[in-house]
Amino acid sequence: MEIKLMVLDVDGTLTDGGIYYDDQENETKKFSVKDGAGIVLGRAAGLQFMICTGRECPAVARRARDLKIDYVYQNVSRKWEFLEDFMILHGLEKSQVAYCGDDWNDLAAMALCGWVACPADAASQVKAVADYVCPHVGGQGAVRDAIIQLLTRDGVLDQALEKAFGVKKEGSPCTRN
Amino acid sequence: MEIKLMVLDVDGTLTDGGIYYDDQENETKKFSVKDGAGIVLGRAAGLQFMICTGRECPAVARRARDLKIDYVYQNVSRKWEFLEDFMILHGLEKSQVAYCGDDWNDLAAMALCGWVACPADAASQVKAVADYVCPHVGGQGAVRDAIIQLLTRDGVLDQALEKAFGVKKEGSPCTRN
Amino acid sequence: MEIKLMVLDVDGTLTDGGIYYDDQENETKKFSVKDGAGIVLGRAAGLQFMICTGRECPAVARRARDLKIDYVYQNVSRKWEFLEDFMILHGLEKSQVAYCGDDWNDLAAMALCGWVACPADAASQVKAVADYVCPHVGGQGAVRDAIIQLLTRDGVLDQALEKAFGVKKEGSPCTRN
Amino acid sequence: MEIKLMVLDVDGTLTDGGIYYDDQENETKKFSVKDGAGIVLGRAAGLQFMICTGRECPAVARRARDLKIDYVYQNVSRKWEFLEDFMILHGLEKSQVAYCGDDWNDLAAMALCGWVACPADAASQVKAVADYVCPHVGGQGAVRDAIIQLLTRDGVLDQALEKAFGVKKEGSPCTRN
Repeated sequence: MEIKLMVLDVDGTLTDGGIYYDDQENETKKFSVKDGAGIVLGRAAGLQFMICTGRECPAVARRARDLKIDYVYQNVSRKWEFLEDFMILHGLEKSQVAYCGDDWNDLAAMALCGWVACPADAASQVKAVADYVCPHVGGQGAVRDAIIQLLTRDGVLDQALEKAFGVKKEGSPCTRN
Repeated sequence: MEIKLMVLDVDGTLTDGGIYYDDQENETKKFSVKDGAGIVLGRAAGLQFMICTGRECPAVARRARDLKIDYVYQNVSRKWEFLEDFMILHGLEKSQVAYCGDDWNDLAAMALCGWVACPADAASQVKAVADYVCPHVGGQGAVRDAIIQLLTRDGVLDQALEKAFGVKKEGSPCTRN
Repeated sequence: MEIKLMVLDVDGTLTDGGIYYDDQENETKKFSVKDGAGIVLGRAAGLQFMICTGRECPAVARRARDLKIDYVYQNVSRKWEFLEDFMILHGLEKSQVAYCGDDWNDLAAMALCGWVACPADAASQVKAVADYVCPHVGGQGAVRDAIIQLLTRDGVLDQALEKAFGVKKEGSPCTRN
Repeated sequence: MEIKLMVLDVDGTLTDGGIYYDDQENETKKFSVKDGAGIVLGRAAGLQFMICTGRECPAVARRARDLKIDYVYQNVSRKWEFLEDFMILHGLEKSQVAYCGDDWNDLAAMALCGWVACPADAASQVKAVADYVCPHVGGQGAVRDAIIQLLTRDGVLDQALEKAFGVKKEGSPCTRN
């Protein structure tokens, strides 16, 4: 695949945008196991992942550890400047970077990327510039959708499914007979 | 904009009405990051915000701090009397105050305001008096909808998007080419 | 109203059936503020309420306190026998008791009641015997739906709305002009 | 029934796939009381249940205790190998084992089973091999759907409903008159 790195927004993209607060200054986020499987799939196809979020929350660090996310940056106020610097530092071309995000603060960073996806419930301005609007909303598998779409486009979905999950197109063990 | 202040209800408006209780007297509320971005947008257009709720919960105080809400009042049993006094004290005319709420206990206060919005799942009596019924339900961006609608009506949406998020109508950096 | 008491199931009726468990033996339930307003309305019309649930959870006790529920019984394994005894003890006729529940373990108790409602997502066997299938699912206002329906049927909705929330059919303060 | 054992996946099957993380390394899962009633029903029909999940979480152990699940295995990296060994050890034939799961990592194990169900929102590859696609999504009663379908197919639904919940086809106490 030409794409080397997929940049992921958190709130509204890896989650449904829910900010759960309790009485004790504790914040909860709800991630999706479906996105997790999608990221495992993407990694099997050679993709690297970056989480880049404007907010900051220990739950994001933990979920990133689960999923072995390569780069995790929280509390990024200007995603655009941050990503531009990152791409120069790592020698990444526009055509090598994909982005999945949902809102206004992702727009400028999206303009730096060669392929852009967004959840079904993204801001209208984001949908207008996206290469792919995912069938699922944020937090219900939108990131997985984006990864499947990218791997399908590049013809590597089947081999990634087999490598990551032992799923074979035909024949055993995954085919029932 | 003629509107100076938008009054926001909490349960069912900034949330989906969910009251999460656990075994340890701890209450959780689920807010939406989408409403948060909408409030940032509204502030860029010069709007002030008030949270006015009949219940009381530390989570509301925290979310209000996040969003730099100008006025936060919890445990308000009669929103109508409270808002009337507030408007007199602050010299606010009816035409300068907007309201976003969803239920019966908002109705009398809504009658004091120049522009009223409600979530898609508001009480039928509230929908009947609202100037704008948001496309989203409470807790999934209804307050953001209301702010976008108000800014669009007054022709200041594009400049607020640029001021708050650097979103430009055409040309870089947010336009992909 | 002829109905004196409404019996409420908890899981799947006052909640969406979600059982939230964490790592520390803590259980969370999600109630709806919309049902809360409905119960305030019903009380204004003279209804009493009973919570009767087969499970047990401190969150239910707290929510019942919030809503000033008259009778709260948890850990009831045979709702049918329990309710039958309760009705005899309190001299309640079948025609004086309403029930709102969603599942198989409510069916026998429902048979004792004069009016039965169920959430939109109740078990098919429950829907088949219900006098009223609420438009909302459990935890999203089904109990409120049931109360509104009962008060409407008995012609006391408007006076209850005015008594509980100051909502007037016409004229101020709730009518905007 | 010929089926003796139903194997259940957790995330996305007994839950909606939500991974709730807070600030304090605490993980929450949301189960459904509807699935719980379904499992009580299945047990009344003589079914045994196994939970088999690739992740690990105390909440799963607690929910399994609630529901008196016969076999609970967490942190299973290769469900296929694990289930094959289990079936040999317990002398279970393919025709005696049912499976309900939603994602790629369930596919190989599904191929070992005589009857396969999946939630409405399962991966397309899972839907393609399933004998039954449940009308509900994961965490909202999909497992209950699968159990009802299996009991209906084998003509034992009514007797299980009566045994587990006292629900009778006609006559009291569950029939209202």
